[in-house]
Amino acid sequence: MTTLDLTTDAVSLTEQLVNIESVSLDEQTIADAVEAALRGLGHLDVVRRGNNIVARTDLGHAERVVIAGHLDTVPVNDNLPARREGAILHGLGTCDMKGGDAVILRIAATVPKPNRDLTLIFYDAEEIAAEHNGLRKLAETDPDLLAADFAILMEPSNAGVEAGCQGTLRVAVRTTGERAHTARAWRGSNAIHKAGAVLRRLEDYQPRKPVIDGLEYHEGLNAVFVRGGVAGNVLPDECVVEVNYRFAPDYSEADAEAYVREFFEGYDVTLTDSAPGALPGLDVPAAKAFVDLVGGEVNPKFGWTDVARFSALGIPAVNFGPGDPMFAHKQEEHVPVEHIERCEAVLTRWLTS
Amino acid sequence: MTTLDLTTDAVSLTEQLVNIESVSLDEQTIADAVEAALRGLGHLDVVRRGNNIVARTDLGHAERVVIAGHLDTVPVNDNLPARREGAILHGLGTCDMKGGDAVILRIAATVPKPNRDLTLIFYDAEEIAAEHNGLRKLAETDPDLLAADFAILMEPSNAGVEAGCQGTLRVAVRTTGERAHTARAWRGSNAIHKAGAVLRRLEDYQPRKPVIDGLEYHEGLNAVFVRGGVAGNVLPDECVVEVNYRFAPDYSEADAEAYVREFFEGYDVTLTDSAPGALPGLDVPAAKAFVDLVGGEVNPKFGWTDVARFSALGIPAVNFGPGDPMFAHKQEEHVPVEHIERCEAVLTRWLTS
Repeated sequence: MTTLDLTTDAVSLTEQLVNIESVSLDEQTIADAVEAALRGLGHLDVVRRGNNIVARTDLGHAERVVIAGHLDTVPVNDNLPARREGAILHGLGTCDMKGGDAVILRIAATVPKPNRDLTLIFYDAEEIAAEHNGLRKLAETDPDLLAADFAILMEPSNAGVEAGCQGTLRVAVRTTGERAHTARAWRGSNAIHKAGAVLRRLEDYQPRKPVIDGLEYHEGLNAVFVRGGVAGNVLPDECVVEVNYRFAPDYSEADAEAYVREFFEGYDVTLTDSAPGALPGLDVPAAKAFVDLVGGEVNPKFGWTDVARFSALGIPAVNFGPGDPMFAHKQEEHVPVEHIERCEAVLTRWLTS
Repeated sequence: MTTLDLTTDAVSLTEQLVNIESVSLDEQTIADAVEAALRGLGHLDVVRRGNNIVARTDLGHAERVVIAGHLDTVPVNDNLPARREGAILHGLGTCDMKGGDAVILRIAATVPKPNRDLTLIFYDAEEIAAEHNGLRKLAETDPDLLAADFAILMEPSNAGVEAGCQGTLRVAVRTTGERAHTARAWRGSNAIHKAGAVLRRLEDYQPRKPVIDGLEYHEGLNAVFVRGGVAGNVLPDECVVEVNYRFAPDYSEADAEAYVREFFEGYDVTLTDSAPGALPGLDVPAAKAFVDLVGGEVNPKFGWTDVARFSALGIPAVNFGPGDPMFAHKQEEHVPVEHIERCEAVLTRWLTS
């Protein structure tokens, strides 16, 4: 079995984790290594569910916080093994999010008596369809294991705090017409032409930018697919524009759906996918203390992350991990060494001061 | 070998032809039967090229006319054998265009001494890609065999004269943008949204309706396909609208391309396909005589047909065949018996009066 050395620095530990290939649904090796390393520490109560591992202190503190990271990566793209070049560590998963996992493991190893009870979570299958998501499964089968006052998700956020997350939904906007031979177009009506007004409406869209807990979110409404057509000589009788709405967390999924339906009033709109946002929830004491420690600077999270799953359980959550999310899922994925070190230092200070 | 009885009436002969299955590229059986029947008549000079048959009189007349029909059909769609119900003959190819082929065979058999020299052409593979088209091949390999003053193509036209044909071309109109995550849409630009203006321009299009030789053509400019999209959470960086322009025969292919390029000025336009129209050419004596005989009523042909191939050889050509083209290529294909009889009567009168 691959073993992890939790006594090395977090950057070397990131390198070790990166070199254990763990594409979604193939996380057993890395989960075995993480489980063994956590059990080896002796002071944590370790539970395993599939390839999900939960390690907890039980020191009787009034406050309990979750620190969580996923173990899987997107597919390998000629970017393994890890390669360190000066202040940068390159390779698949360095940014998303084994740098963060390494930080959690270092906290587990170096902070045996934290000032708040800790629930450390490593989970699988974050990079693929939600049905596989390990955190989603844990929330369903073992909600008690996840219970906490505050959660930190180690999603890449440039080693800064990105609070909450925007929700996302998708709708299909359909226009219909009547088929006819293009040589006698006046006998039919062209569904693709009608989609022109739908796209123009999107082009004129002005995003909401609500300020929540002092953070300015920034919504988006975008066509992500368009398709229509029957044959090269036939007037098309259907055109479908798929639209993705990214909505600020002051809107529920129902609010967001109502907004989109009103926006496309007069059109046939079908909801195809929806996930709620997460409010920043920075007013709970554990969150306040954490934000103060980081220096008070907090940004809104525009993308959707698993913080929404904690939010759905009533647990305020923030993103706080090493790496620039712009490089996640790219071949040139990498993480600044300094990000890993800063995240470790901040968490250590927060849990020991 | 299947034999054809040219002494029966044209409707029964249509039925015989329909019952010889001849989907494109599988025309040998029907071509064998047609060749044998024509050779059996004795008064025609018969030449065969592949499954294309040309049968000519050589009576020394000053005027020579072509009468042509294709032998193939679109694929069988549970619509064989032929089935006669009162005044209607049902089945694959009844309309497009074995009713017309039967009329040509009857003319061959019953008008041994026409008042104009005749070139009767039966050809293959009209219903598929132009590279296979038998008439196209004959025009290339044996242009002398096709030489004539006027041509009649037995394409279904409700047993009336439809003169010339509109041309057709296709262009791809491309819009481009810049990819970005939909949660941070302001970092990119959406190519699908930009296509909205392209579609709106198409929606506002006003067709040209030029009058040529007294016939009003009716153009059309239609999106036939639209596609764009990368992933459900990515701003698309490309959108392609495929547009089909049906243009009146006063426009050359170059005119038509220039028209479309000007229409979509400001956009990236690629020509993907083009075929010229055919001018009605009703001013030649043979055409005039024919039109007078039919009763002087002539309509423009909106769809593209092989008359354009004759036109390209400098031979004025009209469509004149039994059947409503709206039923061509449909499972419920059929032809009114009266159409077949009228076409045969008109041609006989024209060639004997």
